[in-house]
Amino acid sequence: MIIVTNSGITKEQWNNIWEKLESWGFQLHVIQGVEKKVIGAVGDKRKVDFHFLENIPGVEKVIPILSPYKLAAKDVKPEGTIIEIGNLKIGGGHFGLIAGPCAVESEEQLIQIARGLKDAGANGLRGGAFKPRTSPYSFQGLEKEGLLLLAKAREETGLPVITELMNLTELDLLVEYADIIQIGARNMQNFGLLKAVGRQPKPVLLKRGLAATIEEWIMAAEYIIAEGNEKVILCERGIRTFETATRNTLDLSAIPLVKSLTHLPVVVDPSHGTGKRKLVIPMAKAAIVAGADGLLIEAHPDPANAWSDGEQSLDLAEFKILVEQIQPLLELENKRL
Amino acid sequence: MIIVTNSGITKEQWNNIWEKLESWGFQLHVIQGVEKKVIGAVGDKRKVDFHFLENIPGVEKVIPILSPYKLAAKDVKPEGTIIEIGNLKIGGGHFGLIAGPCAVESEEQLIQIARGLKDAGANGLRGGAFKPRTSPYSFQGLEKEGLLLLAKAREETGLPVITELMNLTELDLLVEYADIIQIGARNMQNFGLLKAVGRQPKPVLLKRGLAATIEEWIMAAEYIIAEGNEKVILCERGIRTFETATRNTLDLSAIPLVKSLTHLPVVVDPSHGTGKRKLVIPMAKAAIVAGADGLLIEAHPDPANAWSDGEQSLDLAEFKILVEQIQPLLELENKRL
Amino acid sequence: MIIVTNSGITKEQWNNIWEKLESWGFQLHVIQGVEKKVIGAVGDKRKVDFHFLENIPGVEKVIPILSPYKLAAKDVKPEGTIIEIGNLKIGGGHFGLIAGPCAVESEEQLIQIARGLKDAGANGLRGGAFKPRTSPYSFQGLEKEGLLLLAKAREETGLPVITELMNLTELDLLVEYADIIQIGARNMQNFGLLKAVGRQPKPVLLKRGLAATIEEWIMAAEYIIAEGNEKVILCERGIRTFETATRNTLDLSAIPLVKSLTHLPVVVDPSHGTGKRKLVIPMAKAAIVAGADGLLIEAHPDPANAWSDGEQSLDLAEFKILVEQIQPLLELENKRL
Amino acid sequence: MIIVTNSGITKEQWNNIWEKLESWGFQLHVIQGVEKKVIGAVGDKRKVDFHFLENIPGVEKVIPILSPYKLAAKDVKPEGTIIEIGNLKIGGGHFGLIAGPCAVESEEQLIQIARGLKDAGANGLRGGAFKPRTSPYSFQGLEKEGLLLLAKAREETGLPVITELMNLTELDLLVEYADIIQIGARNMQNFGLLKAVGRQPKPVLLKRGLAATIEEWIMAAEYIIAEGNEKVILCERGIRTFETATRNTLDLSAIPLVKSLTHLPVVVDPSHGTGKRKLVIPMAKAAIVAGADGLLIEAHPDPANAWSDGEQSLDLAEFKILVEQIQPLLELENKRL
Repeated sequence: MIIVTNSGITKEQWNNIWEKLESWGFQLHVIQGVEKKVIGAVGDKRKVDFHFLENIPGVEKVIPILSPYKLAAKDVKPEGTIIEIGNLKIGGGHFGLIAGPCAVESEEQLIQIARGLKDAGANGLRGGAFKPRTSPYSFQGLEKEGLLLLAKAREETGLPVITELMNLTELDLLVEYADIIQIGARNMQNFGLLKAVGRQPKPVLLKRGLAATIEEWIMAAEYIIAEGNEKVILCERGIRTFETATRNTLDLSAIPLVKSLTHLPVVVDPSHGTGKRKLVIPMAKAAIVAGADGLLIEAHPDPANAWSDGEQSLDLAEFKILVEQIQPLLELENKRL
Repeated sequence: MIIVTNSGITKEQWNNIWEKLESWGFQLHVIQGVEKKVIGAVGDKRKVDFHFLENIPGVEKVIPILSPYKLAAKDVKPEGTIIEIGNLKIGGGHFGLIAGPCAVESEEQLIQIARGLKDAGANGLRGGAFKPRTSPYSFQGLEKEGLLLLAKAREETGLPVITELMNLTELDLLVEYADIIQIGARNMQNFGLLKAVGRQPKPVLLKRGLAATIEEWIMAAEYIIAEGNEKVILCERGIRTFETATRNTLDLSAIPLVKSLTHLPVVVDPSHGTGKRKLVIPMAKAAIVAGADGLLIEAHPDPANAWSDGEQSLDLAEFKILVEQIQPLLELENKRL
Repeated sequence: MIIVTNSGITKEQWNNIWEKLESWGFQLHVIQGVEKKVIGAVGDKRKVDFHFLENIPGVEKVIPILSPYKLAAKDVKPEGTIIEIGNLKIGGGHFGLIAGPCAVESEEQLIQIARGLKDAGANGLRGGAFKPRTSPYSFQGLEKEGLLLLAKAREETGLPVITELMNLTELDLLVEYADIIQIGARNMQNFGLLKAVGRQPKPVLLKRGLAATIEEWIMAAEYIIAEGNEKVILCERGIRTFETATRNTLDLSAIPLVKSLTHLPVVVDPSHGTGKRKLVIPMAKAAIVAGADGLLIEAHPDPANAWSDGEQSLDLAEFKILVEQIQPLLELENKRL
Repeated sequence: MIIVTNSGITKEQWNNIWEKLESWGFQLHVIQGVEKKVIGAVGDKRKVDFHFLENIPGVEKVIPILSPYKLAAKDVKPEGTIIEIGNLKIGGGHFGLIAGPCAVESEEQLIQIARGLKDAGANGLRGGAFKPRTSPYSFQGLEKEGLLLLAKAREETGLPVITELMNLTELDLLVEYADIIQIGARNMQNFGLLKAVGRQPKPVLLKRGLAATIEEWIMAAEYIIAEGNEKVILCERGIRTFETATRNTLDLSAIPLVKSLTHLPVVVDPSHGTGKRKLVIPMAKAAIVAGADGLLIEAHPDPANAWSDGEQSLDLAEFKILVEQIQPLLELENKRL
């Protein structure tokens, strides 16, 4: 850790900083610069709150050298983590093609699309039972009934099921019915939820927050792992920028970057990432060659009548085209569906 | 609502759209443009999910005319809402000057600063018992003990207490001990939390999310009000932008804008909004003349030794300067502390 | 064009709006909504300044239906534009692989890398002679000498040359020495420059501005085409967002989106787009399968000693790996180098 | 400057870095950290291009300690710069209230508003003769005729005139007719323009770019000063963020921050900063108490018929209200109009 002090630091302030740093067990080095004095503090700064040090009078800036995550860091497991849920594997050359409707609407809708997706090549089923909606007047999901339908679709198709957890109070239900628990973008820093899914055994798919930096996203994964659950899948789903021509800006450079920083698999959701049906296939393809370990695709038997997010959902015919177009790319990248 | 159709829309698609819109009770008007046909659909579009309509083949774009909120809208209560908590009033010419430490650290720290702030002119006490922290290794708050200390500080000073709710599981505790329940920026779209605070009687201070548009922020308030609790205070605390010289970009234009759109009082948190102690006073002053109904200020007896966010906390001497400098502005704006 | 009027519009204001719109030749339709009256104005709104109408008292909002560009629009040339510069073709299935150093530094450096790139498969040479630099104390380019060296490299290799125009005063020089004139991101809305390159015969590569929406970017192309030069290549090079882990956020979804809106070819610069050498190859691959018509790659014989942007430049060995990895993707996408 | 090396740095790479740094005259200090070795390089890093060093193999990150600007830095002139143009002074307690139409439209329009503004209290006149417009089909300004009208308005009222320079080719004209030369937001990093206005004697008002960090903005001022012209006024006019409810997000925290970093006066343009007439007065007031040295206000005799930006222009009656409301604030802040 580098501590840059103010040009006008007093002797007393300097001594105070010095004593504090020593008392925390850091080994200290001074660099007398042209205008400013800098302290190099050697030790594990993760124990000390980084921002905390900027309070001390005389300190101008504190610059961390080590990244703030430990358990999620690449060097903990350089070979990479593979998540296994029955036959579905994600990471380490295994590719997850998870598709399904934004929201579970009815048994008929769900079973129909689940069968079609399975036949077309999907190896996981997504579907929302509890839905986060901007408006209190929008459809909020079938809730427990939705979970039961997802379980039924799993029975019929063998596809493992991923669905979103919105509240602590619904955790037990989800642990019972879901195979992978999704933490949505709006809850990426809902720390109570992160801790709770860290204490249960199911794998967790952690979506990147709309305004989350890559470091904050990895730190959210660290919360889960720190509680004991190492089965975390990261999901890039677009960030919020000034551009309004797409729903979000899908940050595909996050894939190779995050994979160089952590051992966790990274999947991409081009449906939410773009918000436009016609952009889903090109972005799905791009995600694969950028190194993604899986895709999360919204698909609906009849997008024109979907109860939510139909404008970004593929119908079954389009999903088949997607599968057809990604097959040769998966081969080139040595990824197995 | 305006529905813009595609240039190449088929007769069948057109009929399909028409039937759907009629079946939802809209009155329809067609405008034949130069290149495109447009439908004006008159009726209350809040009943229908806006994005939903963009699924329908042949529809290019749906443009809402009415704002999506009803209960939070200005015209529901043009005179504006006044929140009353004992002697503290916020809104309608009453100004809330709420200050306190980022996190409650100890009885001594809290009582000391609470007394000082009260004497200096604060009429509310803020303090975190449950703390949202980016790192799982950072101090997470004193939890229930923190609430007890806040209650004690209230007893000693008479100041009503505001503190953050992070999880549904802690709601009963907060309802018992807090006077105003804060929903933090990271939970602005934690809809379960919003509904829960909508069903309890205490006023709610709703911070704007880091990446929340003004419309989304008001919709979050709508969630609370729709459950029956009209006592919502909006708090601007900075948005996330490309600029890194400040912790966030404090959007002061949101104050007059939101006050023109809703009847809810708006307060400003220049401490989180800037992240820099030296910017707190100028931004506090600016907030007042821009029309704010209150301030949320981080203050600490000894910022250099604060356990969190000390770099943006005022000490008591600085808080007194703030009070001194805002007094004439409050008078000019006809606001009463 | 849809004109939404205020709830409280007076009869006089209404009449005034009506007369104005009629005097501009619009055909008018009224839709009486639940709360507001809306006017549908049919005619070519491009003649009238859109924002201008929002001045008129009684007008709440003006919503354009047609896109503001005409000459750049897809339907002008649905088959797409192909740019030809000698043997180099870009668009319509032809792929431009343009590479070279950020800045021209010396004859030796340039000729060495140009030969290597040509042999490895590049079909265009990029290099900066006039360099836009954040600091006045940074290397600003070899200027005219740089252009002469680029011309020499073209002679030696046959590669057409692309270089950036920064000032009107240097236009004649660039027209003389360059094969493609680049307008940099910082000059995307330098309208004088846009008009000037619109009046000369060389193709123009127009980089997207750091904060430019897709519509503004296409409008900048419209400026060039409106002056008579249809040979415009659009270049996505990353936008500025809150994320600092990469230099910019490369918006690959812009490729399919822009190609659906305009007839112009789109190339991608993953070097500036990410600012990190290790992300260049994955993003180059992703750009191709997302539909790009070409790549702009920074390459340097010795990145460790580059005078600018070495941290994002490939060396020759890395460039060969890039070519190797993109070959099968180009085949899959039916693109010819 | 702090150079963080990679964990896996080789001995050869280390020696190479060391030699380079020594050859540039830096004095070197090594800090052996827990995982990484760090070099503290003492000397003036402004001479060396910061990014350049990150090219060197073995280097992970380079962290500058000194700010990159010299001539614009606060400590060069701690008392602050005062810009004088005849009677108009800006900075050092002198307040510039510069108002006028977005674009000069006609003699009648300009003289009428100029007289009204002068009488109401303005001490400077703004007006565009050359207009940067997103669309080539929008009104582009009266050009030279506009400058002649501005000169005439100055004669009639005595108000010094500020107008925007868009191209190098128009510089001589502007030097002849304008009293302050404005560099617009889109040209903030048009380095040729910056150098050119640095070599002429008139004061320069430098608007912040839509996506410019505070450091880049100050560096743009450094470009001007480095050429010999110290008379630079910085103008905050809003940055581009995800929020679309306002035209831009006015960053008022930039005022106190920039004033703590440089000796240059800072003015604010709440008209472009918000894009909404009803927000202009509150933001103008807020700017003053945040420490601004002046305001740039769009005013038009008849905003409803303005040829551009009328939706954010005040009429004369509104401008009088603005003056009335800012008067007591200027007094409180000890600023003289």
